[in-house]
Formats: sequence, structure tokens, C-alpha cells
Amino acid sequence: MHLSEAERHGIGAGSVVRRKPDGGYECVADDVTIEEPLEIRIGEEAVAVTMRTPGNDEELAAGFLLSETIVRRRADLREMAHGTLPVSLGNVLNVTLSSTAKFIPAAAHRFGTISTSCGLCGKTSIDFIRQRFRPIDSAERIQIETATLLDLPERLCSAQSNFARTGGIHAAAIFDFDGNLIVLREDIGRHNAVDKAIGRAFLDDLLPLKNHIVIVSGRSSLEIVQKALAAGIPIVAAISAPSTLAVNFARESNQTLIGFLRPPTFNIYSHIERVALDSN
Amino acid sequence: MHLSEAERHGIGAGSVVRRKPDGGYECVADDVTIEEPLEIRIGEEAVAVTMRTPGNDEELAAGFLLSETIVRRRADLREMAHGTLPVSLGNVLNVTLSSTAKFIPAAAHRFGTISTSCGLCGKTSIDFIRQRFRPIDSAERIQIETATLLDLPERLCSAQSNFARTGGIHAAAIFDFDGNLIVLREDIGRHNAVDKAIGRAFLDDLLPLKNHIVIVSGRSSLEIVQKALAAGIPIVAAISAPSTLAVNFARESNQTLIGFLRPPTFNIYSHIERVALDSN
Repeated sequence: MHLSEAERHGIGAGSVVRRKPDGGYECVADDVTIEEPLEIRIGEEAVAVTMRTPGNDEELAAGFLLSETIVRRRADLREMAHGTLPVSLGNVLNVTLSSTAKFIPAAAHRFGTISTSCGLCGKTSIDFIRQRFRPIDSAERIQIETATLLDLPERLCSAQSNFARTGGIHAAAIFDFDGNLIVLREDIGRHNAVDKAIGRAFLDDLLPLKNHIVIVSGRSSLEIVQKALAAGIPIVAAISAPSTLAVNFARESNQTLIGFLRPPTFNIYSHIERVALDSN
Repeated sequence: MHLSEAERHGIGAGSVVRRKPDGGYECVADDVTIEEPLEIRIGEEAVAVTMRTPGNDEELAAGFLLSETIVRRRADLREMAHGTLPVSLGNVLNVTLSSTAKFIPAAAHRFGTISTSCGLCGKTSIDFIRQRFRPIDSAERIQIETATLLDLPERLCSAQSNFARTGGIHAAAIFDFDGNLIVLREDIGRHNAVDKAIGRAFLDDLLPLKNHIVIVSGRSSLEIVQKALAAGIPIVAAISAPSTLAVNFARESNQTLIGFLRPPTFNIYSHIERVALDSN
């Protein structure tokens, strides 16, 4: 082990001591996922602080405000701009709503300082954790082909940039039912990645995303299914496991929930009628 | 595909349609990780709502209150009991503090409705996200052997129950420097798993955990390193990546941060002096 004194004690930002497979050590540069707080403000009110990977903050805010039902359509959102005070360092985003938006500052204590990284913070009462959106319309007879579904993890992977490099970032992507990628976003928080992807579609006025599927690189939680519902997305797929609340919520909201999407296998937890099962 | 009508539309709780490796389908029972909200109350005040895997709620609350500096020693905590109202269904935990504890209800808006599932919610100002504990004392000349470190993932794995089964749960474990397991806890939220493990040690009056290491099954974030510091733990190891804030915090707080602990390799991000590197 031949590290200099500086290497031993002064491991610099982006520098790391790595034990190699052969048992030797090396001092290497390391890509660590960047994590910074973002404060979302409406007027003078800080409505959320979330730990996120910087970038696409407007999308993150749009997705967050949508899933909090503060905005419902593109026109509700007038302007978003980063704070200019040196202290904020780009970590404050000021949102200006249109008069059509539903934000009542007096009611802000209801969500207070919700973080999109957990999605359910700020609810001071368990009873409040309830659905605020109408279920997906089951009259819509739409289906995704099994083959398309099985292609998605590979498409997600090849479109990702950071994940492979750092291993510490989540991805969320929206595809249409033909397997075309609409948007992919990465973030250290999986709820943020979903907020950003949905926020982009919201800003492009693409909602509701009726013939679309959102796929996440990790697990699916209640909040992810809830955010998908806010965007009108009928199918949620995850590479890893769902939680019980996610499953229950998806069943009630008429959403199809797919887990462990690891070709050639996957699990369907709810509303299987939206998957055109191949037979053999 | 020969699923009955009931199977197609009425996928029951714990039942799932699985696509098999051979392309066929089957309807199987599935263990989905249970996720329920827990509200932690001090007196009449709801200080936190977190989505957690039920069980060990007292430990979760103890670890949470410790990392929020509401309690600092065992004696600060007088009593914890689940709510008895039918509506709470065991999802409310009432905490009674001793007069030595630092809880000031008027200041509760400071953290308001923090969720341990994200750890940083409720901070209404970015500036507030700062260290509230003294760094680890660097005068303590303690080291862990590389061989012990490399054994931990295997020991973690073999002590886990739920992870392998559902793939949807995080684990956190505290080991001493000889590799003896002190406590292991699992939860759908990784911060909760850490809170439970540290909370158990707190309730057993084992703090500060000077000659100990905490290991988490996933990534390490700022909050996890911060919680470890609250318990006096000098080394944090994670199977996956750390975030930049976790790395920066560990450096400042004089903690050793290890990532990608996947034998025979691992990365050391800070304070390498606490690892007795093997040489070859």
C-alpha cells in the first residue's frame, strides 16, 4: 500500500481509495452523485425542500406542484426562476402561479415542507394520506404488447447516462405504448426523477399521458404510483419490487402496476387487462 | 395464458401474475413489503409521519428522536406506547419525554413534519441543514481490519430475513470492530432501518458506539452518516454508492465512509486512517 501522506489523509473531492480485486489499493477519481438541497418557493412561502441532483429544477418543481394538485394544467404555471441571492447558489426556485392555480398560502401548512424525496412528509395526519385524483378511466381500452414491455429495461438502460457510471442515481422514463422514449430523467432521489420526467411532459403540455407507461429503475412506492396518476399515466413499471401501499393504491386508482421487470420475467400486481399477454 | 376471470381482474392481496422465464404465465402468491405510515407524537404534537415497515416502532422513534437531538441519552426518554384509538391501528406512537429532554413544542415548527424516510424534510431553510453534533473524536486511535470489513456483507446478508424474499426492503446493521453483530433491522425505508438499528442500541444504553461500524444494504446519504454520528459511530459502510453530501459530511465530521463494499473490492471516501489496510 503506497499512498502518500496527502493521499491517506487528504482524499480530495472526487478522489477515493479503492481496494482492487487483486487486493492492492489505488487512488482514483470517483464520480459521486451530486446531491444538493432545492427549496421551492411560491411567493414568499417555501413550500418544499428536497435533496436532489441539480439540473432540470423547473421540471422537478412542475412535477412536484402537479402531484400536490397546486397546478393542474400548463396554464396554471406562469414562471419559474432561480433565486439570484449568492447564498442560494441556484438552490432556490421561485415559482409564480397564474390566477387559475389552486394555491392558498394559508393552507400551506397542510404540506408545509413536503420533500419530494419521500413524497409523504408534511402530512400531519395519517388520514390525509389519501388519493386526490380521479382513477384512470377504465373505459379507455388500451393495451401494451408484452414484447414492448420486455424491451423497456434495455431501452431505459441505454438511454441512461449517470447510472452506470456512479451506481448511485435513480432513473425514471416515460415511454409511449409503441416503446418510443418521451423523456428520461435521473436523480439521486427516485421521486425526484419521476417528478422531473412528469414535469417535463407537463411543461410540454402533453398531459394526460393516456397511452404511456412510466418505468423506474428501482422500486415503486405509493408516491410514484400517485405521481403517475397525477399525470394520467395508466401503467407503472419498476425494475424492482413494489410496496404494499403502491399495490393497493394502483388497484384503487385503476392503474396497472408491474414489478421485477427483468426480461424475460415480470410480475403484474394490478389491472392486468392493460397488458396484451403473449401466449406460448 | 389460462387465467380465470377472477385471476385476471381480481388479483388479490399477496397474489400476482408472473411471467415465467419460459414465456408462460402463472398466478402466484407474492410477498410484498408492507408499508404503513407511523405518526410519532410527543404530547399532543405530531412531530413526524414516516412510511415504514411496521414493527420495532419504539426503536424507530428512539433513533429518530436521537438524530433530531430531541433526546441525547437513554434517561431523556420516559415512555413510548402505541395509540389505542381504533383509527390509529397501531400507527400512532405516543412518546413521553423526561424533563431532561430538549423538546420545546413551540420550536416544533422547525422540523414540523419531518419524515425519517427522507431525513431532511421539514427544514424550511436550506441553511438549517447543518451539523448538530460534534465530530467524532480523532484522538481515539481505533481501526478495523480489512478482513473484518470484507466479511460484513456476507454477515449482513445471512442475518437478513426479508430482503432476499421480497427484494424490496433495506437493511442496516451495527457490528463491532471484531465483526460481531450487535443489531440488524430491516425496513422499506433505509433511513428507518438505520433509525431502528441505532434506536435499539440507544434503548439498550450502548451509546456512544465508539468501536462500531454501521453498514447499509443500499446507498449512503447525508442523513445516514448524520444518524451514525448521532450515535457516535465512526465508520459507515454501504454496499452501494454514497452521495456527495454524505462524503462531504463524513469528512467534516471525522467519520470514515466506505462505499461499494463488494468483496474483494471497496472504496474509501474519507478518513482512511481508521481502516487497517492489508497489503500484498
